[in-house]
Amino acid sequence: MKTYDIDCKDTICALATPPGTSAISVIRISGKNAMRICNKIFHPSDKKKSFLKVKSHTIHHGTIIDNKMIIDDVIAAVYKNPTSYTSEDSIEFSCHGSYFIQQKILEALTHHGCRLALPGEFTLRAFLNKKLDLSQAEAVADLISSHSKTSHKLALQQMRGGYSSKIKELRDKLIEFSSLIELELDFSEEDVEFADKKKLHSLILKIKNNISELKKSFSLGNVLKNGIPVTIIGKPNVGKSTLLNALLNEEKAIVSEIPGTTRDIIEDTLTIDGTTFRFIDTAGLRKGGNDKIENIGIERTYEKIKQASVILLVCDITNTSVEKIISSLDDFKHHIEKGEVKKIILIVNKLDLLAKTPKELNNLLDMETIFISAKRKTNINLIIDSLKEFVVNEQYIQNEPIISNIRHYEALTKTFEAVQNIEGGLDKNISSDLLTVDIHSALHYLGMITGEVTTEEILENVFSNFCIGK
Amino acid sequence: MKTYDIDCKDTICALATPPGTSAISVIRISGKNAMRICNKIFHPSDKKKSFLKVKSHTIHHGTIIDNKMIIDDVIAAVYKNPTSYTSEDSIEFSCHGSYFIQQKILEALTHHGCRLALPGEFTLRAFLNKKLDLSQAEAVADLISSHSKTSHKLALQQMRGGYSSKIKELRDKLIEFSSLIELELDFSEEDVEFADKKKLHSLILKIKNNISELKKSFSLGNVLKNGIPVTIIGKPNVGKSTLLNALLNEEKAIVSEIPGTTRDIIEDTLTIDGTTFRFIDTAGLRKGGNDKIENIGIERTYEKIKQASVILLVCDITNTSVEKIISSLDDFKHHIEKGEVKKIILIVNKLDLLAKTPKELNNLLDMETIFISAKRKTNINLIIDSLKEFVVNEQYIQNEPIISNIRHYEALTKTFEAVQNIEGGLDKNISSDLLTVDIHSALHYLGMITGEVTTEEILENVFSNFCIGK
Repeated sequence: MKTYDIDCKDTICALATPPGTSAISVIRISGKNAMRICNKIFHPSDKKKSFLKVKSHTIHHGTIIDNKMIIDDVIAAVYKNPTSYTSEDSIEFSCHGSYFIQQKILEALTHHGCRLALPGEFTLRAFLNKKLDLSQAEAVADLISSHSKTSHKLALQQMRGGYSSKIKELRDKLIEFSSLIELELDFSEEDVEFADKKKLHSLILKIKNNISELKKSFSLGNVLKNGIPVTIIGKPNVGKSTLLNALLNEEKAIVSEIPGTTRDIIEDTLTIDGTTFRFIDTAGLRKGGNDKIENIGIERTYEKIKQASVILLVCDITNTSVEKIISSLDDFKHHIEKGEVKKIILIVNKLDLLAKTPKELNNLLDMETIFISAKRKTNINLIIDSLKEFVVNEQYIQNEPIISNIRHYEALTKTFEAVQNIEGGLDKNISSDLLTVDIHSALHYLGMITGEVTTEEILENVFSNFCIGK
Repeated sequence: MKTYDIDCKDTICALATPPGTSAISVIRISGKNAMRICNKIFHPSDKKKSFLKVKSHTIHHGTIIDNKMIIDDVIAAVYKNPTSYTSEDSIEFSCHGSYFIQQKILEALTHHGCRLALPGEFTLRAFLNKKLDLSQAEAVADLISSHSKTSHKLALQQMRGGYSSKIKELRDKLIEFSSLIELELDFSEEDVEFADKKKLHSLILKIKNNISELKKSFSLGNVLKNGIPVTIIGKPNVGKSTLLNALLNEEKAIVSEIPGTTRDIIEDTLTIDGTTFRFIDTAGLRKGGNDKIENIGIERTYEKIKQASVILLVCDITNTSVEKIISSLDDFKHHIEKGEVKKIILIVNKLDLLAKTPKELNNLLDMETIFISAKRKTNINLIIDSLKEFVVNEQYIQNEPIISNIRHYEALTKTFEAVQNIEGGLDKNISSDLLTVDIHSALHYLGMITGEVTTEEILENVFSNFCIGK
């Protein structure tokens, strides 16, 4: 595989809109030779308008011709270094959205010296030319794949600077201290103190608190990005899969009258009022089942219970009693306590099989209870309403910076460890040369978030997840 | 269904790139209030740059905000009336290619007074504002859906003026004559002649020849647009469907050892060196078949033979002789003669079942013969080569204007009839008032091609085939 050209020597081109037929396609070109190469194939309607002479941020009509073949009448948008997205000379051609034309223009560009861009290579260049930091670059990819109000908000916040300015500020202060301490080391024989250890102590405390808050926000950020996990559990054949299908409004899970039909974990997302929920259907729990595959399914159910924010505990109205529900809850109790479960809703299913709701069940348990018929889709809306209310009560949508990127979370965890070591060192009054080791470590990991410290491997990991043309 | 707003009162908006995730999406806005509406949601990074003040053909960076929600950081391209595609004030927003963002921007635009555009409505406005004529507008849709070198060339030629300038010229001359003749009618009592009948006669001849040529080009244009029809025929079980699959390199047709497996006409296209071929697999012909469905299939085979440009006559090497081939040809002779067939290739199949090519078959027939094994894909390339050569010899690719639009063909046919009547009338020296009826008719139909004469129905038909956003 070709690796990223971090010297930005080449001029790159790519289709920036989805392939296929549409009104308009956009082809992007960026690099040192962008103007020269495009000049060779673009013939402006106004002959005086060579790309080399026109102003940045202007639009020009013309024809693309290569090898004497007229390819298309296009619009060219010109961005001159350093005011483009990448900070390099860039051109965007808007052509007719035909697959054939897209291919022919890309062929003409590569024929005259462009190289096809790798995924995310335009944004990589924007990062290398300091147009945005690494966490902002990562947010560009998140923004493009955002599909709900909350994931969109998270990504936009991060792209527009979000917590990276805060991290940079903390890091800059730490660098200042670091240089003072290093100065001390140079004069170590003379036993002077340039760095005010008290001030360092309070800075370290501030960093620790900030990082701790950001770290805490990760589980929330992750949930918002991937959907709030709602796990459906219950004994075999109470209608868990039918409920999943009713919630998603499609035949996602196979439903049969045979207990134990669902073995795999089946999940899918549904966005309600801008927040994504991830519904998870699990294997029904029954004791003494002999089926090996079913038992693996049950193990996985326990895993999914631990990861759930909300649990829908389903039971069958025709075959239930307060005792049975309590025994059902007991089955899971151990796993629920170990996990992150914030809410349990008791779903009493198969309402369609009874003439009226049995009174003895209502309000007997100190638990939110919803009577439904998954088969007839009765009262499914009550479950949806309850989930909406949950989002509001849990304050899932707020304005504080939220970490949703596992790479950032890991860097923050390492920084936290280093900061704790510095704090401990200061308390024990250890020597400055020992302190600097941990300060360097903290600086290193903080810098990895914003990309002030980076490796080719990190860049490769971050940018290979982008789409082509971004 | 909503009909087209031919007064262009509304300001319209649409996604101009395919929906879905990509680097960039483009949203187009056009109409009287485009600047005012976009100004409400677009907040330029450089605060002085209100759309109302900036120059046409300039690009501006900013943020789209609606209802206090930040939607995206975008680039806005500004085109001012009359230098835009539609000739109206227009703006194109390039946003991040997320479905969520696309929807939110369109929502914001409609919320502030835009209407979602109907298919082709931007091009309809370009036509109504005389930026292009109707045949050019039609070519825009053809260009977008072009998928081969030849269909692309046809569409581009038509979009860039192609034959419509020729038609307009002929029509203008005819209008001149028409007004002279009408002047005569006003002065009819005085028996003067303003129009030189001889000159009219030579003009009519010129128009007739031109139209006749364009009409002739239609079958070629149609073939180039939809693919050169290559029909595969032969007795049952000689391997016609296996050959189709080998040519297309996919399992398109069901293949079995049972004679008569193929009943429906199966077709698919393959583009070779920029020219599209439409391969058609047909039901095998056998006499006295009792299967009703199979007989319908055979009827259709005859139809496809008539429409073919090339016929691949397949026979089975293990069960063939010169007599059998001649008898096979005789089966189809009647239908071939009635049609447009330009070339027949004898394909001797199942080479894999014999150790070596039997000599007696080679060169015995005065016919291009290719020995193949469709099953093993042996010598399929020889068929491809022969088809390439056919394209060159038939001069399928040339620079003369070519009609490929059925609507234009029909209008030309009607014009031709009217012109023939005028010619006949001139020969018989009929009175001027009778002549004018046919002249008006010719003007009417010529005007329909370029859209100087049009009806809402024509516009609806033409533009409803466009994609949204064009």
